[in-house]
Amino acid sequence: MTQLPAPIALLTAALSRLPGIGPRSAERLALHVVQLDPTQVRTLAEALIQARERIVRCERCGALTESQPCPICGDDRRDATLLCVVERALDILSLEKSGTFKGRYHVLGGKLSPLNGVGPDDLRIAALEARLQPEGVQEVILALGSDVEGDATSHYLAKRLAPAGVRMTRLAQGLPAGSGLEFADELTLSRALEGRRAL
Amino acid sequence: MTQLPAPIALLTAALSRLPGIGPRSAERLALHVVQLDPTQVRTLAEALIQARERIVRCERCGALTESQPCPICGDDRRDATLLCVVERALDILSLEKSGTFKGRYHVLGGKLSPLNGVGPDDLRIAALEARLQPEGVQEVILALGSDVEGDATSHYLAKRLAPAGVRMTRLAQGLPAGSGLEFADELTLSRALEGRRAL
Repeated sequence: MTQLPAPIALLTAALSRLPGIGPRSAERLALHVVQLDPTQVRTLAEALIQARERIVRCERCGALTESQPCPICGDDRRDATLLCVVERALDILSLEKSGTFKGRYHVLGGKLSPLNGVGPDDLRIAALEARLQPEGVQEVILALGSDVEGDATSHYLAKRLAPAGVRMTRLAQGLPAGSGLEFADELTLSRALEGRRAL
Repeated sequence: MTQLPAPIALLTAALSRLPGIGPRSAERLALHVVQLDPTQVRTLAEALIQARERIVRCERCGALTESQPCPICGDDRRDATLLCVVERALDILSLEKSGTFKGRYHVLGGKLSPLNGVGPDDLRIAALEARLQPEGVQEVILALGSDVEGDATSHYLAKRLAPAGVRMTRLAQGLPAGSGLEFADELTLSRALEGRRAL
């Protein structure tokens, strides 16, 4: 059996390390790429490098951004009294697409998971606490997933932030149980925002 | 609604031009890429460019290769009297994986499709004819798809190559290996019946 030419095999390997791309789709993509217009391939390669180099994390909220602070933290028209806590930076995009939230965000960077060795100090919780008073936050909306770890993280945060005296709410159970934000459609997300309940 | 940062939007657009990657998976991939280790992103970008630059088409058979001629055309142990005609370069990989064919290949670059404006001059048919005598080909195996266009192309080639006096054969059509009758459509079953072989 003839092997794949080395450059195609290397590209296949690199592509199959991306999420959701199995060995067969990686091979199919690699074979497609080598037959593309060279300009298009350079454009894609350049887009990869540019995206990685120019995108940083907002020092305040942790969002993915080109500018410091990110456009949402820098936008005075956003309601600074409402702070929405999400697990990952991409959850911000899902919430923004729902179009109902006009406050600001805070990315935790994960959720508590003792089994995977993720404790409170591994998340951006201290940074969250440090924002509450200076920014005049009156309500913290916990927009974490509705799975067990999301539940546990929400309850931990509710307890830990209680002394700060801000209102703590949580997305309504409009989210399908056991699912992450990225699978919810925009309507579900906006209903979940509207129906948030006090903890 | 906040837009995606420009470099992520550009990367999403570039990724969604690849086959089998829709807008949502492109966005998910782009968001994953900007959070990767920068070295891994450069490796992927470099693999893309290298693959595109180093892979050419074999001048003889049309396969994707690093060397000229390709390893199969350059391998004297392959049976030069058997020439297998395929539609696309990646079909060679599928056949090589089956491990049963020891001859050489010829990539047509498509199949006849009058509706899409693909005629005989758009395929590498003249190059195929030119190989038959010099290479001492005794049998041309048509390994094209079993759809209408594959059928039409096979019949056209059988007629056009007839004067060359080589044996023309075609891949058998029948039940897929390891499958039951209940999964086969009527056309497949009738072809499997026509092509029945003595035990």
